[in-house]
Amino acid sequence: MINIAIIGAGKIAAVHADAVRRCKLTNLTWITNRTIEKAHAIAGPGVKVSSDAYAAIKAPDVDAIIITTITETHVAYILAAVHAGKAVLCEKPVDLDLDRARKCLERVEDFGGQVQMGFNRRYDPSILEIHERISAGEIGTLEQLTLISRDEFPPPLEYVPLSGGIFKDMMIHELDLARFFLGLIESIHAVGQNVVDPRVKELGDFDGAVAVLRAKSGAIGTIINDRRCVYGWDQRIEAFGSLGSLSMTNQHATSVVSSGTNTTSAHGRVTSNNAQRYGAAFEAQVAGFARALDKGSPLSPSLQDGVEALALAEAATIQAHNTPATVLG
Amino acid sequence: MINIAIIGAGKIAAVHADAVRRCKLTNLTWITNRTIEKAHAIAGPGVKVSSDAYAAIKAPDVDAIIITTITETHVAYILAAVHAGKAVLCEKPVDLDLDRARKCLERVEDFGGQVQMGFNRRYDPSILEIHERISAGEIGTLEQLTLISRDEFPPPLEYVPLSGGIFKDMMIHELDLARFFLGLIESIHAVGQNVVDPRVKELGDFDGAVAVLRAKSGAIGTIINDRRCVYGWDQRIEAFGSLGSLSMTNQHATSVVSSGTNTTSAHGRVTSNNAQRYGAAFEAQVAGFARALDKGSPLSPSLQDGVEALALAEAATIQAHNTPATVLG
Amino acid sequence: MINIAIIGAGKIAAVHADAVRRCKLTNLTWITNRTIEKAHAIAGPGVKVSSDAYAAIKAPDVDAIIITTITETHVAYILAAVHAGKAVLCEKPVDLDLDRARKCLERVEDFGGQVQMGFNRRYDPSILEIHERISAGEIGTLEQLTLISRDEFPPPLEYVPLSGGIFKDMMIHELDLARFFLGLIESIHAVGQNVVDPRVKELGDFDGAVAVLRAKSGAIGTIINDRRCVYGWDQRIEAFGSLGSLSMTNQHATSVVSSGTNTTSAHGRVTSNNAQRYGAAFEAQVAGFARALDKGSPLSPSLQDGVEALALAEAATIQAHNTPATVLG
Amino acid sequence: MINIAIIGAGKIAAVHADAVRRCKLTNLTWITNRTIEKAHAIAGPGVKVSSDAYAAIKAPDVDAIIITTITETHVAYILAAVHAGKAVLCEKPVDLDLDRARKCLERVEDFGGQVQMGFNRRYDPSILEIHERISAGEIGTLEQLTLISRDEFPPPLEYVPLSGGIFKDMMIHELDLARFFLGLIESIHAVGQNVVDPRVKELGDFDGAVAVLRAKSGAIGTIINDRRCVYGWDQRIEAFGSLGSLSMTNQHATSVVSSGTNTTSAHGRVTSNNAQRYGAAFEAQVAGFARALDKGSPLSPSLQDGVEALALAEAATIQAHNTPATVLG
Repeated sequence: MINIAIIGAGKIAAVHADAVRRCKLTNLTWITNRTIEKAHAIAGPGVKVSSDAYAAIKAPDVDAIIITTITETHVAYILAAVHAGKAVLCEKPVDLDLDRARKCLERVEDFGGQVQMGFNRRYDPSILEIHERISAGEIGTLEQLTLISRDEFPPPLEYVPLSGGIFKDMMIHELDLARFFLGLIESIHAVGQNVVDPRVKELGDFDGAVAVLRAKSGAIGTIINDRRCVYGWDQRIEAFGSLGSLSMTNQHATSVVSSGTNTTSAHGRVTSNNAQRYGAAFEAQVAGFARALDKGSPLSPSLQDGVEALALAEAATIQAHNTPATVLG
Repeated sequence: MINIAIIGAGKIAAVHADAVRRCKLTNLTWITNRTIEKAHAIAGPGVKVSSDAYAAIKAPDVDAIIITTITETHVAYILAAVHAGKAVLCEKPVDLDLDRARKCLERVEDFGGQVQMGFNRRYDPSILEIHERISAGEIGTLEQLTLISRDEFPPPLEYVPLSGGIFKDMMIHELDLARFFLGLIESIHAVGQNVVDPRVKELGDFDGAVAVLRAKSGAIGTIINDRRCVYGWDQRIEAFGSLGSLSMTNQHATSVVSSGTNTTSAHGRVTSNNAQRYGAAFEAQVAGFARALDKGSPLSPSLQDGVEALALAEAATIQAHNTPATVLG
Repeated sequence: MINIAIIGAGKIAAVHADAVRRCKLTNLTWITNRTIEKAHAIAGPGVKVSSDAYAAIKAPDVDAIIITTITETHVAYILAAVHAGKAVLCEKPVDLDLDRARKCLERVEDFGGQVQMGFNRRYDPSILEIHERISAGEIGTLEQLTLISRDEFPPPLEYVPLSGGIFKDMMIHELDLARFFLGLIESIHAVGQNVVDPRVKELGDFDGAVAVLRAKSGAIGTIINDRRCVYGWDQRIEAFGSLGSLSMTNQHATSVVSSGTNTTSAHGRVTSNNAQRYGAAFEAQVAGFARALDKGSPLSPSLQDGVEALALAEAATIQAHNTPATVLG
Repeated sequence: MINIAIIGAGKIAAVHADAVRRCKLTNLTWITNRTIEKAHAIAGPGVKVSSDAYAAIKAPDVDAIIITTITETHVAYILAAVHAGKAVLCEKPVDLDLDRARKCLERVEDFGGQVQMGFNRRYDPSILEIHERISAGEIGTLEQLTLISRDEFPPPLEYVPLSGGIFKDMMIHELDLARFFLGLIESIHAVGQNVVDPRVKELGDFDGAVAVLRAKSGAIGTIINDRRCVYGWDQRIEAFGSLGSLSMTNQHATSVVSSGTNTTSAHGRVTSNNAQRYGAAFEAQVAGFARALDKGSPLSPSLQDGVEALALAEAATIQAHNTPATVLG
């Protein structure tokens, strides 16, 4: 059994805690949070609780830690855990600063540390199925990948300045998936827009964005993001290849469809809750992490995957802010 | 070229006239209607018009007639045409009286006449495709056939006493399709209901009905009818077999789907217009009629098919009206 | 906390055990099974295990029992539990013999016992949603209900003689749902067929069936069953009313669709596993059972619902076997 | 009645001829083609035929001409027709050379000529419906538009050097639609790829492309093109706005779906034939042209629309060929 400590006790920590409890290879031993009451709320019987993350990181009954705290703490916890000989599963992104993230990677590599990035969508059953069917040759050569992700609601305005911007905060998931499906990315072109809340523009961020990526393979990836979607959490993928296509469609809470005077065969709202939509992915992510540790096989997605996705997000951010509008005509 | 006369000049006659004009083997030469103005409204340049159906039936520039008048006139026109050596395409049903219909069939057979029944759905591209794919073995042995047909609006109340009842007027289409897919029917059980307009009940008819048919093959057919459907003209089929299923889904005027706050991926209303939904079937029906006449091959569906469907409708009518409710418990 | 004992340790018992563990109002205290090893396999730490069901039924740390054993044992366990003052959640059917089931109901009522029947589909999120939206008036008056249930694989041949026949074993779920949606049923007409395995016919059972039910409300219900379905476990509902329709479509393991040379927008196989398809229903059923016990509100579906569904199944069985084929024509 | 001459007698000319025949405001009087036999093949009775386009352009029984010949002839025929006082419906593009196209527009404007461009998709019932529902406010502010167009088969290799490249030949349809939906385009970024046939690369063209357009409104348009699609002619649109989305899904020849061992609810191939997929659009385009001429209202899309779309295609071409791959990392 792998003993796990969870650092942080927010919403996502609760999802991880459930995943750890359901996994047959893992045992939840610690939860830490600055406000200890929140840690108590998630910890069940037999789980130690502390307001000091380092107490858990150093504890002998901890083999691996899951980092769910705010981004600026990630590097410090990663390095502490690696130095303590513990494996790490860290929520994305590594850091908002690409240089810091790269230095973190160097030190982890020097130390031979084991760090997995929490790009949980790589473990989503639908996304995994598409990846596996592509690998099995079902659609021939992958030529064009389209990733659509639209949040149900924009984040609180006060979060925007802390977020690192739409590319590092939101698109980074699709940038990682683009790398997962397309391999090496050679170039990226990104465009931002302000369509939801004018105050986001004043804060120097976008609330919509599109990016086009050219892969070394010759394939092109297209990513479409929007910070607001009235019909739910829009999460779709289309992988188009020489022999066909594989698509992930949106998911719903039930399989009920309705017909009335004006509409027919209508589904309900799209599943918007993270734990509902990607609950299976969170479970599979912890299971994958535990299985790799158990077998001694490499963790995936790795810390390097986290750095590469961040590099794409950084390039997109710079470009979207600096490229002047080529006024036509 | 096969010269065609159309008897009657109502809505369905106009649809047939278009089909005759588009068919490369046919030539529209006559349209007759008691009220001659209506015939003029449909006839284009070069088409003769008369208030006397028999003038067209006997005319030397007529090879075949299409009968679109009210049901009670069908038998007389069929026999007159057959005696005049003309082929016939007759709208359903043959007659409301099963005995008259059977006698008509006898006389047509004695005379060696050629009569096709206007069960146009056998020529619908979707229905034909299902029939052909079943014949090609795609779903193995056909085990269960489900036919759903729901009219958008109930017929005018004054039509109800003339209609022959829901089984002879409406379900007869599905009874014919049941025979088309299942072959010989051994037994039928029918249930009627009054859910739309209580005055229909006072007139001794139903406005909803379900029938279960047992085929000699061992397959079971289920037919569901309703006289009112708020989302359009509900026309669906499911053929279920040992190796899979083939279904005809509803059709829409465009391929637009919408998502909003409460519903996602919603189609618009179902196509309700006969000429729109079954326009291709009407064209293919005339083309099939002309091709068979041209090649001397048998017409299908035949007058006998019309009599057999009527016999099923008669059996259903008697049963639904006479079987007392087996009050349970 | 409500202490629960599970009688029986088969597949369905394991599903119930998970549901009991996830429910916040219940505590799993006992599992019994004639072969005690199977009970051990399901019981976690702290759960008592016995080969004697009555030991659990009488135990002071048991408030309620869940009966998952073979049908012929249900009545005895129900009565023992009720006499011991314990609430019961019993898998369907009550018994294969309608008289025994009715007598059981009488004795339970005399004793004031609390018995819920395991018609778990009433708790399925999709089915519940349809029921609630109908109750809220979304489709006006319910006119026609269509229930399709097709098993992926036929049961083992040796089970057929013990099953009570397709109507009591398989259709009983849809008969209960018909009552759930339509209320009082006035009449039923059932037709059986043998399409999957000729040996089932030799054993005096059917492997396909269709039933038509007339409700007191004027609505008609249609049930379609087949013992084999190559594309998975076909579980669909269509509720059609004066203002629209609500349908439950089939469910799939992922939301991936594919397009290739011959097919487009194709989903994968339909979810076939009971725990996957109705896992949420099993959880909600135990939660509903516990909540009702906690609040002292009536259990639903009740033992009487179990007897009524059995009465419909009995009527269908007799009719399908005895009604001669009305050979037409 | 508006008398129409069709210049050219290829496939698209035949589609236009059908549209002219079905339109109640138009009369087909001439068809011209260098190889006169081809003109004879399309012309029905009463239609004059010539190998000289100018004969038709000058003929007194011609009010308007439809130009369907190869691109390099468009400007000359447009100017000749305008000088002869005839209205024009010209197939896209105006010309491959943007300067020539602009000069043509100047001269037509100087002369007060009436020229409509054959961007027939603006008349497609599905596309029109989306445009109208957006205008009616159904999805609030249009934020993101995605246009996917993938040809079934790549064009013949010998056509590639004459085509003007993928942006002027293929994407020009989506560039026009982007203008139709988004209004003024401020900037465009385009990426090309070679994934289908390496010989296309040798000829200096691409066989896949993605473009991102920024509209003055703040909306972003994304266009995805591929020259080969095994499942048919992929023609889709998604318009996403602040209150919902409207999408055009692919269309199929029938509404049959199938389920088998591995796939469920599978549609057949996507409609690939131009006359089938956009037949209604071709009819509506001629009807719109005729109606505008009849009422004296402006033609739409106009020659200027043709020039603007060409300008976007030119900008995309230059950019996709000249922007070096920003090699990352």
